[in-house]
Amino acid sequence: MSKFFLGIDLGGTNIKIGCFDENLKLHAKSSAPTHAEMGPENVIDSIEQTTKELLNNNSFTLDDIVSVGIGSPGPASISEGIVISAPNLPEFQNVPLRKLVSQRLQKPVIFENDANAACWGEYVVGAGKGVKDMVFFTLGTGIGGGIISNGELVHGHKDNAAELGHMIIYPHGGRFCGCGQRGCVEAYASASSTARRATEAIQAGTPSSLKKVYKKNGEITCKDIFEHSANGDSFAREITNGTAEALGILCVNIIHITGPQRVVFAGGMIAAGKPLLDGIKKYFNHYIWPLKQESLEICFATLGEDAGIIGTAALALHNSQNE
Amino acid sequence: MSKFFLGIDLGGTNIKIGCFDENLKLHAKSSAPTHAEMGPENVIDSIEQTTKELLNNNSFTLDDIVSVGIGSPGPASISEGIVISAPNLPEFQNVPLRKLVSQRLQKPVIFENDANAACWGEYVVGAGKGVKDMVFFTLGTGIGGGIISNGELVHGHKDNAAELGHMIIYPHGGRFCGCGQRGCVEAYASASSTARRATEAIQAGTPSSLKKVYKKNGEITCKDIFEHSANGDSFAREITNGTAEALGILCVNIIHITGPQRVVFAGGMIAAGKPLLDGIKKYFNHYIWPLKQESLEICFATLGEDAGIIGTAALALHNSQNE
Repeated sequence: MSKFFLGIDLGGTNIKIGCFDENLKLHAKSSAPTHAEMGPENVIDSIEQTTKELLNNNSFTLDDIVSVGIGSPGPASISEGIVISAPNLPEFQNVPLRKLVSQRLQKPVIFENDANAACWGEYVVGAGKGVKDMVFFTLGTGIGGGIISNGELVHGHKDNAAELGHMIIYPHGGRFCGCGQRGCVEAYASASSTARRATEAIQAGTPSSLKKVYKKNGEITCKDIFEHSANGDSFAREITNGTAEALGILCVNIIHITGPQRVVFAGGMIAAGKPLLDGIKKYFNHYIWPLKQESLEICFATLGEDAGIIGTAALALHNSQNE
Repeated sequence: MSKFFLGIDLGGTNIKIGCFDENLKLHAKSSAPTHAEMGPENVIDSIEQTTKELLNNNSFTLDDIVSVGIGSPGPASISEGIVISAPNLPEFQNVPLRKLVSQRLQKPVIFENDANAACWGEYVVGAGKGVKDMVFFTLGTGIGGGIISNGELVHGHKDNAAELGHMIIYPHGGRFCGCGQRGCVEAYASASSTARRATEAIQAGTPSSLKKVYKKNGEITCKDIFEHSANGDSFAREITNGTAEALGILCVNIIHITGPQRVVFAGGMIAAGKPLLDGIKKYFNHYIWPLKQESLEICFATLGEDAGIIGTAALALHNSQNE
């Protein structure tokens, strides 16, 4: 009899669920709106219902499922399976998500935070495949990530490791970060911060082809900036360079700390493509000492939006193999 | 029959050897000059001879010894037990130290780099006792260290993790570091860099009570600087603040990466005592986001110069238990 594993990616907007076999081949997937504002009980109902529909619609039963992985925004206690609080999941305060889902589905459930789950997905079948030491960065509203050391996720004390965007690289006079610190990488290089740096300068009158975009749309997006940079606007180029520089320094610092073989960037911003990747590599090579220049592979994630369901299913599979 | 473990700390100046029981209680220790300039074969002879004398003089035989741990300066391949090259061990190029020592002593040998070995010693019986996630910094000529994640040393790809002093915190206009990078923590906060920053300023005419020291001794040591700082010299205070600030930022960054419960500082500079420790804590609290302010324990190492022999013996013990 084949064995199947469910991966559940609980996000602020949608719940995504995938059904995978032992080779992590996707057999079926589905999604439903989270409606986090209606509270945890409602979300658990929705997870149960969506799972059962997914199985029914694809000729599976719960008996086919060995175990379940679920990823959620944090902060969370991984070891206890509890969502402590999550800006993207209002109403979730100390919710024992692992236990609740396990009771509903009557299956063993593995719990992980969303960034670590996506990191694990990329590690097992995506851009990190074949390495044992990897660091994963997500470039979105913030900069999060995960660390794999010798084939294991690094959780740290109280599961607070891998807040990678909050490494300080400009302590003196650096930009304020949403976290309360100053000079964090996230304050320069997240998609939101990249857009904010450009918007502030345009508002202050800096000449740029982005000025028209701002007048028309009332905002400037990260996508606009990379497009105008590619089209030769020197101010837009300066902003994208600032982003790539912060990420290049982040790579230098991380190689000196956990010593990864490969660094994988994910998240909406990687849609900027080769110019962003080349920029990060350029600044990495500029800042790193010569001996280590050749020793880090820097690349983009390959699993896209499925990283969460693949990663959580892969964690469920990994756990069942180690039992 | 009791079981004993040898810890060998191979340094640029001395070889130190200790004999420990299963509770890591020290029963005997000895040391001999390394004479690294005479080449690896001579050093191996010396290790063999010093070990045998130590055992003889203390009524042990090699039969009492289960296994041996040896720590050496790097860069090294930990997994292969090879010293690739080491500035402090001239003549050592790709020396298979683990194999050579194992052949001479006819015992299983565990190999580790010196900073990781000292880190492990502090973790098992020193300042890191009782935690599972710890980061260890040595403040000497350079800044090295080790990382314990979930009870295991982090080695990284090709064993190049934990070059902790080479985290860049002042990328723009920062001081040049011996490694070829710019703005590394080591360029500010190692004992040598602390002395160098002061010396340069005194040479340039900065007023300070350290000027007399420089005139008298032709140099300024880190010890002088901390003493004059304690005695109220404002320039010396500025220099020690710069050191503490860099180390405080290092602590902020490391808590966001591997999430340690405790950070342990070791090396000659910790002789500066409470003013240094208080300074590091002050800057950590200044730079860290408020939520994490209470979450990191910062302290000094407790094993002193024996950390190397304790750590290597503890690694030998650990390995024998895991076999």
